[in-house]
Amino acid sequence: MKHARYTHRGPVPQDVIEATPFTLPALQAGQVRVEVLAAPINPSDVLTLTGDYGSLPPLPAVGGNEGVGRVAEVAADVAGLSPGQTVLLPIGCGTWSTHLIVDAEALVPLPRGGDPHQLAMLTVNPPTARLLLSDIVDLHPGDWVIQNAANSAVGGYLIQLARIRGVRTVNIVRREAAVADVQELGANVVLVDGDDLSQRVAEATGGARPRLGIDAVGGMATERMAQALAPGATLVNYGAMGGEPCAISPSALIFRGITLRGFWLAQWFKNTDAATRNTLFAELVGLIAAGQLKARIQQTYGIDEIKAAVAAAAAGERSGKILLLPNG
Amino acid sequence: MKHARYTHRGPVPQDVIEATPFTLPALQAGQVRVEVLAAPINPSDVLTLTGDYGSLPPLPAVGGNEGVGRVAEVAADVAGLSPGQTVLLPIGCGTWSTHLIVDAEALVPLPRGGDPHQLAMLTVNPPTARLLLSDIVDLHPGDWVIQNAANSAVGGYLIQLARIRGVRTVNIVRREAAVADVQELGANVVLVDGDDLSQRVAEATGGARPRLGIDAVGGMATERMAQALAPGATLVNYGAMGGEPCAISPSALIFRGITLRGFWLAQWFKNTDAATRNTLFAELVGLIAAGQLKARIQQTYGIDEIKAAVAAAAAGERSGKILLLPNG
Repeated sequence: MKHARYTHRGPVPQDVIEATPFTLPALQAGQVRVEVLAAPINPSDVLTLTGDYGSLPPLPAVGGNEGVGRVAEVAADVAGLSPGQTVLLPIGCGTWSTHLIVDAEALVPLPRGGDPHQLAMLTVNPPTARLLLSDIVDLHPGDWVIQNAANSAVGGYLIQLARIRGVRTVNIVRREAAVADVQELGANVVLVDGDDLSQRVAEATGGARPRLGIDAVGGMATERMAQALAPGATLVNYGAMGGEPCAISPSALIFRGITLRGFWLAQWFKNTDAATRNTLFAELVGLIAAGQLKARIQQTYGIDEIKAAVAAAAAGERSGKILLLPNG
Repeated sequence: MKHARYTHRGPVPQDVIEATPFTLPALQAGQVRVEVLAAPINPSDVLTLTGDYGSLPPLPAVGGNEGVGRVAEVAADVAGLSPGQTVLLPIGCGTWSTHLIVDAEALVPLPRGGDPHQLAMLTVNPPTARLLLSDIVDLHPGDWVIQNAANSAVGGYLIQLARIRGVRTVNIVRREAAVADVQELGANVVLVDGDDLSQRVAEATGGARPRLGIDAVGGMATERMAQALAPGATLVNYGAMGGEPCAISPSALIFRGITLRGFWLAQWFKNTDAATRNTLFAELVGLIAAGQLKARIQQTYGIDEIKAAVAAAAAGERSGKILLLPNG
């Protein structure tokens, strides 16, 4: 048994993480032993290793916030789960591990036939995309939404979820090479970021201005998006891919009435009851298991390749998610 | 009769404005002829001359959005106003003029004994300060609010209005020389802006974090204020004195839940019925006439000195408002 553990944080995330042997104790009442099948390396995991995330676990810690496992053993008193069942692991349980002991009631059984690699990415990026689309501005079928970082995993989920709801998407990418990938997901409009963005958006939408802007880049990309929005629109930021503070002009705030806010899934989980959370997960499990919602995977890694996996996840330009398969 | 008129807009505001002779027609039914006693040159007037304001009147236009006049003549059918009465001029009527013809019903009679120079500044800066304080976040006596540009006219009004309501103010200025002036207005705390602002705010308030931040500077001053706010706080921008877009970090937006929005008095007027507006004006007339609410005046100018007056209003560092006295 091995897990990817860190005892300190530092600016180069692959330097602090390490595959380390460990042993599990015997099961206690109500517990289940799980073999981890797949666990992604999310941007928030990288920020947790560098110390830049909004909440940091005590040290030492095992990396990984989400994933899918297979039940290997259940305590004598556990009903409704048996070995071989595929399950969604609870958020924040340190999923970069070959094996875990988890309370049975924290596990969500997954439908047969769903792709475990896709289901392993269910609890972080898809809810972010879904809530950005539904909880910030009241959108109706036919409405437009604009997002940047459209070739990110959240961006891709958002395009697919918007399409299901009949909401139309303007998608901004930073390089021409990313356009085709984004179009393939069902984007209505894909544009490369630049100074005349507002005008090109209006041309592409027939003059319609989105009431919701979704920014994961920051810097002047935020201001360019603000210019493209309808007066009174909301601009929501959920990422800092450009590495700069969001820039937004007083004239956009004052004269055009744009509001800039943030979205943090961890805060949403904290403010939301279990029933609401489970309803959201059930919706997403259904869509992912049916193949209607998916993310590209750039590469998979074993637990002993954790340093290379984290380095790949931290690299600026990726063509898809980095997935850890702890049991190979 | 002369007024300060412009036929085009340009980057140097004093270059486009000019004192120009004109004549008034005879009074028609319901009208009043007014001698303008005093009219300020506001930042929004300067931005209107340069073309940078959010709404621009058709050209040619007479400058000036607010002021106080004295009734000189009334049409035969006008009741309730007689020559000699001091009146508040309607917003946006081109007050940089020796004389105006105005509909009687658009004039608000002012109490005897109020300082006409102070009353001339009533309809723009004091409502801005009052609404920033009351309409963005629900504040209670003892709460803290933080503002920058605290030595501006709006900043000064805000300190005085907060004090009346029992709300405590942290006031940020850009230079040490401005501290004493701001303290004199009744500020609870005055600090010079800088990188360690958040820590100095917490020290000055005994650890209390404001739920409302008021920004008229932009650039990194916005981010420094965001750092000093309570989680979930609102930051409202109403000016661009620094000349740069507002900067705010994704971590402030996402992890600390700060919302950044704008405030524009013209939009508030547009969305608000006359009764609400008049109630607000009546409150402010009372406070100004009683000497409880005032602004420093740096210098007064005659109508023929309009170019020097506009240049002084557009200059970066002032010790008070620039006031035009069209009739000397």
